[in-house]
Amino acid sequence: MGVNSNRAEDFSSQDTTLRITTESVMPGMEIHKVCLPPKKTTLQKLKQRLGEIFFPDDPLHRFKNRTWCKKLLLGLQFLFPIFQWGPEYSLKLLRSDTISGLTIASLAIPQGISYAKLANLPPIVGLYSSFVPPLIYSILGSSRHLGVGPVSIASLVMGSMLSETVSPHDEPILYLKLAFTATFFAGLFQASLGFLRLGFVIDFLSKATLVGFMAGAAVIVSLQQLKGLLGIVHFTTKMQFIPVISSVFKHRDEWSWQTIVVGFSFLVFLLTSRHISMKRPKLFWVSAAAPLTSVILSTLLVFCLKLKSHKISVIGYLPKGLNPPSANMLSFSGPDLALAIKTGIVTGILSLTEGIAVGRTFAALKNYQVDGNKEMMAIGLMNMAGSCSSCYVTTGSFSRSAVNYNAGAQTAVSNIIMSTAVLVTLLFLMPLFYYTPNVILGAIIITAVIGLIDYQAAYRLWKVDKLDFLACACSFFGVLFISVPLGLGIAVVVSVFKILLHVTRPNTLIMGNIRGTNTYQCLGRYKEASRVPSFLILAIESPIYFANSTYLQERILRWIREEEDWIKANNEGTLKCVILDMTAVTAIDTSGIDLVRELRKMLEKRSFQLVLANPVGSVMEKLHQSKTLDSFGLNGIYLTVGEAVADISALWKSQP
Amino acid sequence: MGVNSNRAEDFSSQDTTLRITTESVMPGMEIHKVCLPPKKTTLQKLKQRLGEIFFPDDPLHRFKNRTWCKKLLLGLQFLFPIFQWGPEYSLKLLRSDTISGLTIASLAIPQGISYAKLANLPPIVGLYSSFVPPLIYSILGSSRHLGVGPVSIASLVMGSMLSETVSPHDEPILYLKLAFTATFFAGLFQASLGFLRLGFVIDFLSKATLVGFMAGAAVIVSLQQLKGLLGIVHFTTKMQFIPVISSVFKHRDEWSWQTIVVGFSFLVFLLTSRHISMKRPKLFWVSAAAPLTSVILSTLLVFCLKLKSHKISVIGYLPKGLNPPSANMLSFSGPDLALAIKTGIVTGILSLTEGIAVGRTFAALKNYQVDGNKEMMAIGLMNMAGSCSSCYVTTGSFSRSAVNYNAGAQTAVSNIIMSTAVLVTLLFLMPLFYYTPNVILGAIIITAVIGLIDYQAAYRLWKVDKLDFLACACSFFGVLFISVPLGLGIAVVVSVFKILLHVTRPNTLIMGNIRGTNTYQCLGRYKEASRVPSFLILAIESPIYFANSTYLQERILRWIREEEDWIKANNEGTLKCVILDMTAVTAIDTSGIDLVRELRKMLEKRSFQLVLANPVGSVMEKLHQSKTLDSFGLNGIYLTVGEAVADISALWKSQP
Repeated sequence: MGVNSNRAEDFSSQDTTLRITTESVMPGMEIHKVCLPPKKTTLQKLKQRLGEIFFPDDPLHRFKNRTWCKKLLLGLQFLFPIFQWGPEYSLKLLRSDTISGLTIASLAIPQGISYAKLANLPPIVGLYSSFVPPLIYSILGSSRHLGVGPVSIASLVMGSMLSETVSPHDEPILYLKLAFTATFFAGLFQASLGFLRLGFVIDFLSKATLVGFMAGAAVIVSLQQLKGLLGIVHFTTKMQFIPVISSVFKHRDEWSWQTIVVGFSFLVFLLTSRHISMKRPKLFWVSAAAPLTSVILSTLLVFCLKLKSHKISVIGYLPKGLNPPSANMLSFSGPDLALAIKTGIVTGILSLTEGIAVGRTFAALKNYQVDGNKEMMAIGLMNMAGSCSSCYVTTGSFSRSAVNYNAGAQTAVSNIIMSTAVLVTLLFLMPLFYYTPNVILGAIIITAVIGLIDYQAAYRLWKVDKLDFLACACSFFGVLFISVPLGLGIAVVVSVFKILLHVTRPNTLIMGNIRGTNTYQCLGRYKEASRVPSFLILAIESPIYFANSTYLQERILRWIREEEDWIKANNEGTLKCVILDMTAVTAIDTSGIDLVRELRKMLEKRSFQLVLANPVGSVMEKLHQSKTLDSFGLNGIYLTVGEAVADISALWKSQP
Repeated sequence: MGVNSNRAEDFSSQDTTLRITTESVMPGMEIHKVCLPPKKTTLQKLKQRLGEIFFPDDPLHRFKNRTWCKKLLLGLQFLFPIFQWGPEYSLKLLRSDTISGLTIASLAIPQGISYAKLANLPPIVGLYSSFVPPLIYSILGSSRHLGVGPVSIASLVMGSMLSETVSPHDEPILYLKLAFTATFFAGLFQASLGFLRLGFVIDFLSKATLVGFMAGAAVIVSLQQLKGLLGIVHFTTKMQFIPVISSVFKHRDEWSWQTIVVGFSFLVFLLTSRHISMKRPKLFWVSAAAPLTSVILSTLLVFCLKLKSHKISVIGYLPKGLNPPSANMLSFSGPDLALAIKTGIVTGILSLTEGIAVGRTFAALKNYQVDGNKEMMAIGLMNMAGSCSSCYVTTGSFSRSAVNYNAGAQTAVSNIIMSTAVLVTLLFLMPLFYYTPNVILGAIIITAVIGLIDYQAAYRLWKVDKLDFLACACSFFGVLFISVPLGLGIAVVVSVFKILLHVTRPNTLIMGNIRGTNTYQCLGRYKEASRVPSFLILAIESPIYFANSTYLQERILRWIREEEDWIKANNEGTLKCVILDMTAVTAIDTSGIDLVRELRKMLEKRSFQLVLANPVGSVMEKLHQSKTLDSFGLNGIYLTVGEAVADISALWKSQP
């Protein structure tokens, strides 16, 4: 400690001359000075930090060093990806897109009608929602394979949240108004997340949470379809497991065997076709065409056998014509505004998560990038426009996108083709659905959601990460027994709690030297690692924060106590120096700084030396700003554990 | 990749033979295998994890390898620390303890009366609270210097939370009942935290938060004392800045100059004595004796000059006698139970935080340990007992403990002496307080709380950690303008958000080789570090979780893009290998595993090799369990960056 007179200057100056000790343990080992990171003002740091938070992908890097004209073109392409692929569009691409577009249309029409029923909306709204949003997405969206339309999860959540307050049967107009208003808020929320570059919010719904959530939702949705499949008339509007199950058995007298026979035959047909397509992806068209085939067959069946009179309920009259405008139905006041906003945010987040995940999955398969924040804006704007044209929440659907991809879609034109097919249906084919039995919609929904129960993924979670499995189980049971938003909320809290737990109780490891190297590794893990006499080398595996500084102090003191006990038991030399390997201490706050000071004082009183090895830039900076560095001096901070051991041993030898 | 046929076996077997390549870049460099941590069952892991969470200090280590008799004695000492120091107690220690006990009694009596008024309770309750709890603490507590009694913060919070619902003037009995019930719940909560070893909960009130909170509370308390100091009769019961200030000026006609003159003279006297003691710690008795002196002087003044008729309000009649039992006043039903529980938890947490912090501070000065969880049980039991004997929330007070320490207290006997002095006061001296003016209590409170405004600490926070300062400012302004529990809540959320932000947007650094060593360090920070051609070496400074896996993927791809641009601009060789230094990746979840797999696939498509260096034990384990290790094979995971560079370069040379 004698050479530390100008230590403050030593640390703040940025020169990088080496400090070489003559009597090192490792002959010829150079001792390097630990540098502070380059000096930055608070403003510069804030700018860099905000840049990392909001622009980690550096979205404007393509604009650098370009002419104005080029910049304009790039900007246009940035905002409307259609300008990117549009000029290179060819007849060959159109052929692929037409085939895939027609294929997904055959899936989209029955799905649209079914999902609208799931949301307690008139079936026609499902078709409207398969017309306008895909058109808008094809201009704004950056994914080439996303099949856009209503999806089961968002439909279910919207239906369950709205019908808790407003009955869709008693007040259908108010319910419709609320649905459109919620869709508007969903779109606004999604577009704002994208515009404000807050896309990382959806990352907090981890995959583990989603696996549980989707499975729970699929179970609930499937059970609810028992209403249609069994032909029950009086059914609960609640979404929890227990009321639904009890409702099924309470109304046993309403079960209709004709409905059951028709329903379960088509369910078996649909599930078989799904199974075939899953076994052989080349036969994707089997499951893609099955829903429409079922609709046609069952409609013909009901029509020919006059089963309508035999207690099989049918869709009934559907109005012909294009989407009517619905901007006048949005209401931004009144007692239900809070409900609309809440429903909008929850469905918005869920549909966004699905859309982004699906887009990324297929982009990765074809090796192109999907910009999350841009996609959010596209999906958000499409929902805002949808809410003004009688559509409810839409997003990229997994089943539709998979069919689209397998059918060979090349660009977003396949969405335009699908829209056109829906347009034709809306204009001319609506009367054909009059005799379509409701039971078939239930079968289609069950087939669609059954794939969401990914028990293999849950098993993988259990095997790899028990806490992830816990989050998964929480969201599954939360959705099943409590409610959708609460179930999701609990799962997010569990996930965040996991992060906090890791910080609150970080690992500390006792390290040893790997023979013949300067590498230090965990003693318990590496048999080649051996203790260095007189040293206790501890690695702290977490940032040091207020939440763990008390724990770390206790834990480090316990390590020292145990080391002393071990030394006593083994008759080794005395402990003289404690080295903290700070490589994994990636951040520190003022409580952490206090811990370091306190620990140093406590160890000094017991005449141990405390040494820090390899503090990272930000930690070094804070140690400097709080003047803690000064108290450590030159023999207190080293670049590596190896250098610390070498230098301090040499010092001890020279001063016996 | 040709040698990886039996790689799965290679990683799962625990043998530690070295793998040596002949043609290394660094001559003679050994390449070490990365080991998995020793195998453990889920149960063993759970046991270890729970041990770290609940018993980090290994509280039973003293009981190991002892006889039954010794274990019993140790257990008794563990539960009642009085058995630890009791047998060695001597007359010399008693002398010190008597002096310090009498000194703090002279402080405790006026403080007790004042703080009870702060909590809107009868002054006598403050004295009761300085009698029973210190006795109980002296048996159970492990701190030797803690001066126990009512404290300003907890009194203020209890007063403000209870009087929002129940008026202490209109319903004094109900108010008193609520106060005792809240005290009971505070004690129950504190004792449970200790018993369940959940002491780390109070760590979430970081020092930064507390600095802001205390300053805010001190400002509010001081402003409230203007009621007494100015002689205002009609004053708001609200605790926010704006109503208090407006109340002061609205009732300007009630200001009484006699009160103002007496009040401010004594305030100046008290502040001066406080200043003297702070400048010269040896004169601690000046500030310790000042409150009692002021009380005596002002009482004499009022009595002799008959100032009572001159609009100076006095305390009035106080009943003589010991604490009456109050167990019958605890009510565990009724509409106000929720309020009592909430108040109990908030005051419980706050008083616990103060008590533990004060205990630790003085223990550190005298180099002994205070067991946090045991202290919590002691404080909790003392409050539960207190609630049954007409006491309200008490804890270790900072001002009292400082005086105790400076007066030379050696053991908890000083608390017993203080209790005895309070007992004498309660039995014989109560009528003497009849003429004590209320204004003097206001002056005592202001003098006590003014020290809580630690602007220097706030400045240090600003200098060292801007986000800590933000948490501090949030709790300051939250307490001042919103309310005590909400202000604290906001500050805790800000603190937790800070942890999450660090995880959500972790640092990634580009590393270079420090010339002549095997050490790799940040290129931006170390000028000696230089790029290794054909390699991109990235250090990830955070666990990889669902909350950051998307960000990290984007960021790593951006680093690669920028590296390629740099290479193109500088005409260097092509990039062939990306090394991720995983030293600071202290944990990984299933989303993180997916990131690693995905990244590997993406880079493979662009014919880059992805290599992991030094994954920690738990990460290695999860990579193994998820079978990700297999896809990496032997040339995919290295112990250090240096070995990775050496081995892969050698491989390239041998396979040109």
